[in-house]
Amino acid sequence: MSHPTAWPALTGIAYGGDYNPEQWPRDVWREDVRRMREAGVSLVSIGIFSWALIERSEGEFDFGWLDEVIGLLHENGVSVDLGTPTASPPAWFFAAHPEARVIARDGTVMGFGSRGMASHSSPAYREAIVRIATALAERYGDHPAVVLWHVHNEYGVPVGEDYSPASVGAFREWLKDRYGSLDALNAAWGTAFWGQRYAEWAHIGAPAAAPSVVNPAQRLDFHRFTDHQLRACFVAERDAIRAHAAQPITTNFMANQSWTTDLWAWGREVDVVSDDHYLWAADEDAHIGLAIAADLSRSVGGGRPWILMEHSTSAVNWQPRNIAKRPGEMARNSLSHVARGADAVLFFQWRAARSGAEKFHSAMLPHAGTDSRVWREVVGLGDALGRLGDLRGTEVEADVAILWDFESFWAQDLEWRPTDDLSHQERVRAFYERLWRDGITADFALPGHDLSRYRLVIAPAQYLLTAADAESLTRYVAGGGTLVVSYFSAVVDENDAVHPGGFLSPLREALGVDVEEHLPLRAGAAASVTWRDGASLRAGHWQEALRLHGAEVVGSYADGPGVETAHRAAITRSRLGAGTGWYVSTRLDADGLRTVMADVYADAGLTPAATPEGLEVVRRRSAERSFVIAVNHRDEDAELAATGHELLTGVDADGTFSVPAGGVAVIEIGTTSGGDR
Amino acid sequence: MSHPTAWPALTGIAYGGDYNPEQWPRDVWREDVRRMREAGVSLVSIGIFSWALIERSEGEFDFGWLDEVIGLLHENGVSVDLGTPTASPPAWFFAAHPEARVIARDGTVMGFGSRGMASHSSPAYREAIVRIATALAERYGDHPAVVLWHVHNEYGVPVGEDYSPASVGAFREWLKDRYGSLDALNAAWGTAFWGQRYAEWAHIGAPAAAPSVVNPAQRLDFHRFTDHQLRACFVAERDAIRAHAAQPITTNFMANQSWTTDLWAWGREVDVVSDDHYLWAADEDAHIGLAIAADLSRSVGGGRPWILMEHSTSAVNWQPRNIAKRPGEMARNSLSHVARGADAVLFFQWRAARSGAEKFHSAMLPHAGTDSRVWREVVGLGDALGRLGDLRGTEVEADVAILWDFESFWAQDLEWRPTDDLSHQERVRAFYERLWRDGITADFALPGHDLSRYRLVIAPAQYLLTAADAESLTRYVAGGGTLVVSYFSAVVDENDAVHPGGFLSPLREALGVDVEEHLPLRAGAAASVTWRDGASLRAGHWQEALRLHGAEVVGSYADGPGVETAHRAAITRSRLGAGTGWYVSTRLDADGLRTVMADVYADAGLTPAATPEGLEVVRRRSAERSFVIAVNHRDEDAELAATGHELLTGVDADGTFSVPAGGVAVIEIGTTSGGDR
Amino acid sequence: MSHPTAWPALTGIAYGGDYNPEQWPRDVWREDVRRMREAGVSLVSIGIFSWALIERSEGEFDFGWLDEVIGLLHENGVSVDLGTPTASPPAWFFAAHPEARVIARDGTVMGFGSRGMASHSSPAYREAIVRIATALAERYGDHPAVVLWHVHNEYGVPVGEDYSPASVGAFREWLKDRYGSLDALNAAWGTAFWGQRYAEWAHIGAPAAAPSVVNPAQRLDFHRFTDHQLRACFVAERDAIRAHAAQPITTNFMANQSWTTDLWAWGREVDVVSDDHYLWAADEDAHIGLAIAADLSRSVGGGRPWILMEHSTSAVNWQPRNIAKRPGEMARNSLSHVARGADAVLFFQWRAARSGAEKFHSAMLPHAGTDSRVWREVVGLGDALGRLGDLRGTEVEADVAILWDFESFWAQDLEWRPTDDLSHQERVRAFYERLWRDGITADFALPGHDLSRYRLVIAPAQYLLTAADAESLTRYVAGGGTLVVSYFSAVVDENDAVHPGGFLSPLREALGVDVEEHLPLRAGAAASVTWRDGASLRAGHWQEALRLHGAEVVGSYADGPGVETAHRAAITRSRLGAGTGWYVSTRLDADGLRTVMADVYADAGLTPAATPEGLEVVRRRSAERSFVIAVNHRDEDAELAATGHELLTGVDADGTFSVPAGGVAVIEIGTTSGGDR
Repeated sequence: MSHPTAWPALTGIAYGGDYNPEQWPRDVWREDVRRMREAGVSLVSIGIFSWALIERSEGEFDFGWLDEVIGLLHENGVSVDLGTPTASPPAWFFAAHPEARVIARDGTVMGFGSRGMASHSSPAYREAIVRIATALAERYGDHPAVVLWHVHNEYGVPVGEDYSPASVGAFREWLKDRYGSLDALNAAWGTAFWGQRYAEWAHIGAPAAAPSVVNPAQRLDFHRFTDHQLRACFVAERDAIRAHAAQPITTNFMANQSWTTDLWAWGREVDVVSDDHYLWAADEDAHIGLAIAADLSRSVGGGRPWILMEHSTSAVNWQPRNIAKRPGEMARNSLSHVARGADAVLFFQWRAARSGAEKFHSAMLPHAGTDSRVWREVVGLGDALGRLGDLRGTEVEADVAILWDFESFWAQDLEWRPTDDLSHQERVRAFYERLWRDGITADFALPGHDLSRYRLVIAPAQYLLTAADAESLTRYVAGGGTLVVSYFSAVVDENDAVHPGGFLSPLREALGVDVEEHLPLRAGAAASVTWRDGASLRAGHWQEALRLHGAEVVGSYADGPGVETAHRAAITRSRLGAGTGWYVSTRLDADGLRTVMADVYADAGLTPAATPEGLEVVRRRSAERSFVIAVNHRDEDAELAATGHELLTGVDADGTFSVPAGGVAVIEIGTTSGGDR
Repeated sequence: MSHPTAWPALTGIAYGGDYNPEQWPRDVWREDVRRMREAGVSLVSIGIFSWALIERSEGEFDFGWLDEVIGLLHENGVSVDLGTPTASPPAWFFAAHPEARVIARDGTVMGFGSRGMASHSSPAYREAIVRIATALAERYGDHPAVVLWHVHNEYGVPVGEDYSPASVGAFREWLKDRYGSLDALNAAWGTAFWGQRYAEWAHIGAPAAAPSVVNPAQRLDFHRFTDHQLRACFVAERDAIRAHAAQPITTNFMANQSWTTDLWAWGREVDVVSDDHYLWAADEDAHIGLAIAADLSRSVGGGRPWILMEHSTSAVNWQPRNIAKRPGEMARNSLSHVARGADAVLFFQWRAARSGAEKFHSAMLPHAGTDSRVWREVVGLGDALGRLGDLRGTEVEADVAILWDFESFWAQDLEWRPTDDLSHQERVRAFYERLWRDGITADFALPGHDLSRYRLVIAPAQYLLTAADAESLTRYVAGGGTLVVSYFSAVVDENDAVHPGGFLSPLREALGVDVEEHLPLRAGAAASVTWRDGASLRAGHWQEALRLHGAEVVGSYADGPGVETAHRAAITRSRLGAGTGWYVSTRLDADGLRTVMADVYADAGLTPAATPEGLEVVRRRSAERSFVIAVNHRDEDAELAATGHELLTGVDADGTFSVPAGGVAVIEIGTTSGGDR
Repeated sequence: MSHPTAWPALTGIAYGGDYNPEQWPRDVWREDVRRMREAGVSLVSIGIFSWALIERSEGEFDFGWLDEVIGLLHENGVSVDLGTPTASPPAWFFAAHPEARVIARDGTVMGFGSRGMASHSSPAYREAIVRIATALAERYGDHPAVVLWHVHNEYGVPVGEDYSPASVGAFREWLKDRYGSLDALNAAWGTAFWGQRYAEWAHIGAPAAAPSVVNPAQRLDFHRFTDHQLRACFVAERDAIRAHAAQPITTNFMANQSWTTDLWAWGREVDVVSDDHYLWAADEDAHIGLAIAADLSRSVGGGRPWILMEHSTSAVNWQPRNIAKRPGEMARNSLSHVARGADAVLFFQWRAARSGAEKFHSAMLPHAGTDSRVWREVVGLGDALGRLGDLRGTEVEADVAILWDFESFWAQDLEWRPTDDLSHQERVRAFYERLWRDGITADFALPGHDLSRYRLVIAPAQYLLTAADAESLTRYVAGGGTLVVSYFSAVVDENDAVHPGGFLSPLREALGVDVEEHLPLRAGAAASVTWRDGASLRAGHWQEALRLHGAEVVGSYADGPGVETAHRAAITRSRLGAGTGWYVSTRLDADGLRTVMADVYADAGLTPAATPEGLEVVRRRSAERSFVIAVNHRDEDAELAATGHELLTGVDADGTFSVPAGGVAVIEIGTTSGGDR
């Protein structure tokens, strides 16, 4: 089951980070490579913001300094992930092509001096990115140091949407492709509402600022279009590189941190998934958000190992309060990513920048230099990863799938939903966190995927669900699966139009219930549920009036408007064929969700892990070998049941292993230090 | 006293809603009319957003589908309120006339894709609305189904102000009409302040974004101008229709929900007032806001019956949390409107839209279909209204007037007032709510109205008061009336200039007091008042330093800066001629206001109703007949003292009648089921 | 030590305010001068917003009314501070020069109708201001009533930054002057970051709206440029006046209320400093902010007496809640300013305006007229100031300097700093308030100033510190000074680039410590410190990981991330040569700061005053005479130790003097009523 490592031609877990030698004089370059060797760095990403230094004016290239840097790295055994610098065109580009600037929704023209300024629909920009990508690939396509291509940077961040004339024109063409006829577009967008019918293609614009809410189907299509344009730029660069280079090509995603790109589609275009992940500092359990990002990165890549392209050694610089990582936290974060399928641990960035917008972002080599906690931990992590080479190429296995559908999220986030308290992120996190605390590893999936290999599928926020996808989920249940659907799901179709049969009607067969009316609550109102054993579960923000079509009521509203509905039904369970469909119509708190999920697990034949809460345990395996990675987020040591060889300490575990407070253990199951496996 | 029903040529209380058949296929139309009959629907509003479907391109009309719809309704006994679709011009209009788009104060051009996009000062728009209104009137002016014309939709919402060049040019012309000379304008605007003197008409602009606060008199005039332009558009359409049609003509107001139009002026232009009203969901007593809206609708129409053009069967879709109505609430809301003078109960909308920005707005026929609480209540309400036909044309009587002056509200809401805590809405609601809870029905009025028929006049927030209006109020007191004036009143004249004699000076004679200095409080500071009997009344946010000119001090400041003023005077009472003038210089809470108003009632010869709090009781009567409508907002039954025939149940009340919890009773006084009246 | 009073040719403390006769008819003028005499007014500022009335159209002047006003004032013994009206060009100017309008960062064009609308880089504006200033100086340069020139009004307020094409062009020229070469600019701005290298001067723009954070060095330079452009306008007007007039020339600053102008540079350009100060009403101790402003005004003028050009008799009109002053507060405020070096007490404004944006701003003659508390206090203050003429020209002495560096503040306020909780204002106020409560008077200073005459120098927020300035501070310590540095200091150089040696490294020698890592805290987290005597000091928001280089640890982190650092060091003390360097790495609360500063005072040889808290005591002296001014902010009388003649009451103090609650005393030390000094 181990994957061929088509991607970076390296052994073991790759280690390193973004490297920006153009910010430093040459004597610092020499110190850099010496320190990279000291830290065990094997891979650095370069050139990501170097356009102005490579193409000094249009068509005039200067590769000298880049040749020198790559040569120096190569001599020192550090491989190169070579970036295309297209996230930040040079000043001369915008001076020559002012029409290529992004225009914001309110008409503000986005100026130079930051990054991400170019319209992805601009012909001039499209031409320029192919030119620079081609030039780089021609020169470095067969350089032995270059093992990977890094196209652009974080597509969709800081801006994706563009209301420039070029974008509007491209949007019309995209709509012609999608709909074929104006009648089809008018039907899909429901333009009979508010008198918006289009009689000419030329009359259609981007959904710019307007006196009131703009057509939601138009806005949803503009999300799709924006994603398409970004991806078209990636594909153009990728193909330009491929014409001259054989190395794998990637671009860095921002899974669980940006929602502007449909990573399922992007996952099909890259040779290997790579991801940037930064802790959300206000969240004291930010490592759970990290786990979501890692599982999502793995899932959009079809389960194959992936590259953690960027994370931070300590604080970032762009949050309201940028909390430094505590001692040991960087290593725990890194190994959580590895546990969930990363075969590379890279940072932004190698050396802290003295100037610019991100000077307060931490780095492997901080402003404080090598006499620092951060540097010592960086060296220690390099050493630890060196002991984990055998993990490379192994797979993470999961019995549960959580639905994660960008189109649905885009649609749900449009204006004028029933209450501001709806949040797909909140519910995905709530269900994921329940699994995380129960020691159950999950994949993410689309509703249209083949889900039959999962014991349990959870739909925390599937607001948009097409009829075809609803059929897919229904087949999953009928085939013996356990499905849990949370409220405000299956509300609209692909055009953000309410399903003809009403809310939830596409899943009526699978769940035995549908929704008569949404019952959002006033701020602070309680909405408790009486569970079938009489226990009271706390909930809030949302209730629904349910109509039963065969489901049994397992939880009933004890207060809130749901009390006045026909059956007081809050949580239902229904059998279909060999499977079970659960529906949860309110926002349960963590304890309430624990109660419900315990019964769901029983239906699905799942058993929560017996590990102490806060000890994160994930398994990776190949056809022959099996590893347990245990990350202890607790302030005290935790016992792990395992027999085998612990790779970081070299100590054998004989049935149990004590993972130190704040530490990590990686045990190859069934082996001993004798070395026989 | 019963009014001739010049308006909808229907019998009884009209029932129905907005109907948008263009959103549905023809088989749904046939189901619609069948269901309308089932629900007792007698009147629907159509065509409000149909411009693009009627005028397919400039001057090219397609009436076929509309003929068909009107015919189908007519065959099924449903009358038509025919809309002009001018709130939402077609895409082709803006493609041909991009200069007709509204420009926001900061220069943002408002695009297509929403509604309300057109500049009301645009010559192209003016021409187009007359063309479409004329075409509709020519075609349907003598159609037997059409009983009412519904011009445009909610003027001033979502935008009223427009900073386009056409608007700026029209503003200059409007100013020439208003002032005649630049000297008069410079004087009225006080342009000597901050060096703003105009030497040429052509130099005057709209009060667009500027580095600091813009001239308040200019802004106030721009409010007046905006209102004037909106109304000019209405008049143009109305007159175009009238040239070809005899039916009454209206447009739907948003009383107590939008403050951009001066409904007193609009009330003079429409044949019948109609109003849209939506509960403010965050307010648990939103039915009091409803009562304000209903009383205001009646008042701006001169007391004549009016049309509730839109309300909702359950939740709306545009508030932060859109709370569904509870069982029975829709009927209570509807009958509160009827009690306060509505002779028609219509909803937005008949059938819930699948697509568009308002798909989550409730409807008579919800997404859930007819197997739903909402549908069953809709049918029940149709049945109930069918029993109340005798109310039609009767009048609501009130002994109290509350001043409601849009110009004063516009002026008060300008920037840089003494404290952000000032709110005319808050004070109007506070005094109105006191009356509501005391079972006293009020009209609204302007200070310049003939108020002599009222026992009590309340000025909760008359910041702007002209000298002439002040004289009117003074005459009212001298003539025996009781006047209550709340703080921050009579501060400025019609140009937002402080009265030469200082704050409150125009009412010095009527009240025996004026204001030396405003004393706004810091956030959270207390400002209690000692009442003449020694009781402590809670207050906050605001105090004033008063100078007595004959008034007696009936309440004194016990804390806050008012303590350090000459007389500590907080609340005063003064006699003038046969009348009494009260002044309340601080923001009393509900209990404090109750104490004060009890003594005010005594001065005015008013007696609060003896009904339980939460039982809303209003009377309608004609020359011959008298009705009591009682709406029980309580969770328990309430006893009403009445003798007569209860129309909904057919039961006779013999001195007392038990109104069920959450229910309504309508009793014709003095009649019995024997039928003799 | 008494200064030559080159400035207003008046005797005693000047008294008066802004006077806007153009807002009133001539009969009011006559009342005005009569009332001015009644109140003891000696100086009024006129013409500040009169451009449109003086230059009726381009080049056409009308001085008639101004001649008349100045003549009338002169006849009545009131001197004139003559304004140039350039803060508010006439409407005709913008009609002729629309390109001279300010453009905001997002592209919004700032319109007419307010004030401060003109681009300070516009050639048309530059020409116009010289024309009007010249015309005024030619006409009034030798008028006996005119004793002072008041150029423009509050430069930088309401806007300073301008993104118009004229401004962008001027910015490029300014950059050429500053950097000489593009290589130098690229290095200073660190344009290698995010690929921002410039190859042509013409490609450089203002730091307008962009998709993400704009280059911070560019933004810092744009602050410098903006300040430069404003000052260039002042200099142009000043020089135009000087060509025809000999009177001193000033412009009114907004010390401690606006941070857009570098007052140290402005202080060098004016003949006399003048300042506007308004209490921040939400602050119950706003008189401490007043004291900061007064000390800063004195300091930027090199210690010379200055003019309080504007303050308010009671409430202002532009704050969220505009709190009226309490009885006596106006006099306390005025005499606090005098105590700290003001030799003139002027108000905005003489007579309350009936119209315009500031009609609710208090005045010497309020809307309520002369039968008012405010007027009576105005007359009383005029009388009191008349008794204090001997203070004129004396100096305030201070042993402590607090660093106040506008460039550092501009840099710190840029985006993406470690936490939103950083605030230079907060820390300056915290340290200043500690001194204020301890009765210790402070100057403000720049780090590059000669500080050797101060016993103690405090750097509350010196984020930006050049290497040269760090050497200056180090020399100060080595020379025997006591230096206290607060956290987040010495982080970057003049280009907002982190110092090569890391945070605080430029002060490593002076303080014996540097900073390994910033440790901002989550919202609400505690960060207490254990003091060397075991006491617990409360802190919050911020900690740092310190590295000791010779300093002793006098306070250690007891909780928060600092606990996990090498030494837990929170507060350190180090000896260098004859001096001492303190470093405080966390945000202590007021009590914590008291504990630390008590030991700091001991090092510096300072003794806190023994006066009761809330009794503000400041000393002014000349070579021969010495005065104590005591302002009692308490609700009860306070005893002041002093011997001498109290000037307001004429009573002698023999060792002690009781300053009444809310009152003020001014004692000439060592004199008696006998009159011999």
